[in-house]
Amino acid sequence: MRIAIIGYGNVGRGFVDLLNVRRAALKEEFGFEPKVTAILARCGGRLNPGGIDLNREIDFTSQSATLEAVLDHADVIVELTPTDVHTGGAGLIHCREALSAHKHVVTANKGPLVVAYRELASLARSCGVQFRFEGTVMGGTPSMALGIETLAAAGVKSMRGIVNGTTNFILTQMEAGQTYADALLNAQEMGYAEADPSGDVEGWDAAAKSVILANTLMGSDLRVDDVDREGITRITAAMVAVAKAAGERWKLIAQVNRAGDRVAASVRPTRVSLSDPLAWVGGGMNALTYSTEAIGEVTLIGAGAGGKATGFAVLSDLLKIHQSTQQP
Amino acid sequence: MRIAIIGYGNVGRGFVDLLNVRRAALKEEFGFEPKVTAILARCGGRLNPGGIDLNREIDFTSQSATLEAVLDHADVIVELTPTDVHTGGAGLIHCREALSAHKHVVTANKGPLVVAYRELASLARSCGVQFRFEGTVMGGTPSMALGIETLAAAGVKSMRGIVNGTTNFILTQMEAGQTYADALLNAQEMGYAEADPSGDVEGWDAAAKSVILANTLMGSDLRVDDVDREGITRITAAMVAVAKAAGERWKLIAQVNRAGDRVAASVRPTRVSLSDPLAWVGGGMNALTYSTEAIGEVTLIGAGAGGKATGFAVLSDLLKIHQSTQQP
Repeated sequence: MRIAIIGYGNVGRGFVDLLNVRRAALKEEFGFEPKVTAILARCGGRLNPGGIDLNREIDFTSQSATLEAVLDHADVIVELTPTDVHTGGAGLIHCREALSAHKHVVTANKGPLVVAYRELASLARSCGVQFRFEGTVMGGTPSMALGIETLAAAGVKSMRGIVNGTTNFILTQMEAGQTYADALLNAQEMGYAEADPSGDVEGWDAAAKSVILANTLMGSDLRVDDVDREGITRITAAMVAVAKAAGERWKLIAQVNRAGDRVAASVRPTRVSLSDPLAWVGGGMNALTYSTEAIGEVTLIGAGAGGKATGFAVLSDLLKIHQSTQQP
Repeated sequence: MRIAIIGYGNVGRGFVDLLNVRRAALKEEFGFEPKVTAILARCGGRLNPGGIDLNREIDFTSQSATLEAVLDHADVIVELTPTDVHTGGAGLIHCREALSAHKHVVTANKGPLVVAYRELASLARSCGVQFRFEGTVMGGTPSMALGIETLAAAGVKSMRGIVNGTTNFILTQMEAGQTYADALLNAQEMGYAEADPSGDVEGWDAAAKSVILANTLMGSDLRVDDVDREGITRITAAMVAVAKAAGERWKLIAQVNRAGDRVAASVRPTRVSLSDPLAWVGGGMNALTYSTEAIGEVTLIGAGAGGKATGFAVLSDLLKIHQSTQQP
């Protein structure tokens, strides 16, 4: 399998590190021998149809490569450019072009899914290729594999959970006595929150994930502006203390419900009782409860982010493409 | 797909009910049209190569059928006879014969897996058929799909959880003030515990599930007697109160660890801190935390038993066989 990586930040590097570490095991256990033929980074590109040596520092300055040239030498495009949940950004263009060129696409970029899931899924079908996106929700924790491959057949009625690690980290720090401002600073120092934290603290990231869950698992066609969204910026230390005294904790809860024919999504700070397992999901952890017709509630808890973990999500999508395209 | 059901208790009936309810959806969404050609129950058998009408009361008295005759008219055997974790029981014989006859096998019976997983998996491989067993651990909650299909590639280092609903129900009732004897009686009245409750309260069921997890996910070859096993019969109301005062709860914890080249499994009543999400898994619920190399800890929480839920596990195994044997 020839792989082109477009966008080379934390997740891209996490994925490449994982490939290096697991290369022998992937070949032995799964007969899987991926070869990275191209990497397009912000600072330049590298294209080597024979396979880039990933054990060495990659020199991006000596060469540039176009998307068109890259597509000629890849079977799968791994799309990892920065997320734009309003327009889909460059990622949407890359996904469209790759699928149209009959290349499988694996992405951890929420933008293309939030803006155009239906279009891209249908494009993939009509071009006979796969479009996979495990890394977009809950990082490396396999929320999509669980939801789409297993629980969809159980009839998903609703979903509810903590899908943004940064805000959960901030709320957990506030629970331990920090002010909102200190907790945010702390999150920025730890690399959880970006310099402009609004994508997280205003609830945009959680809203994007709600849209992905709703559209991929419940057949809706929502956009991020359809989400009834409120972030955590109004939560004060006093509010946290009041909740604590009542045996509750503030959590930023994303919820997707079916109401008749309509699917509705919301993201809202919510006081959760300590008897709810979600109350105990702390720090950067994420959790998602799927409520199903056939088997009741199923909850998945795991790390919500991290380059290595999300890199694993990319790898497991690639492995599924490998397994399903092999002759039995 | 022609299906023969061997063993027709709660799970078998749950599966048949689910088939009746979901028949139209399975055809529409997955192109899946299963036909039950035979059911062997304790009180007799029914074989109809044209398909048994599942919407009517099935008359088992008018006819008997041999396993051999049944195998001639089935592509998949659904093995649901009672579990015997020491010898494998009739289930082991059924699995061997069906796989040898090149029939796929789906089972919710722990016996064959605990006694002979390696042999059966290898037999299935050499006969070019599938051997699936989602329903054996955590009932309908997809612990096997998550573990084998997704987390195995992340490198499972250990597993820890609550895998027996009956004992968890009893401990939860004791937490609420009941004595062990009352809680057990309560569990029996609710249908959680059997008249002879030793399989649950002595930890045999949890030990069998630990063996299945260890052998299928960590490559070991344990038997149920290899598990360091202790049940909940020595837990008193006083012990529950002492734990409670210390901010802890007794849970029957199953654990599988790799120690060097060896895999070790244990089942033991354990005091769990209230800050551990496992402490909040109450009643008949189950939970399992997989600790992995690539993505850290992943926890799955869901109902651990029930005919309908376990019937769904059988259905989802069948759906996977359908999907993987279809021409793309």
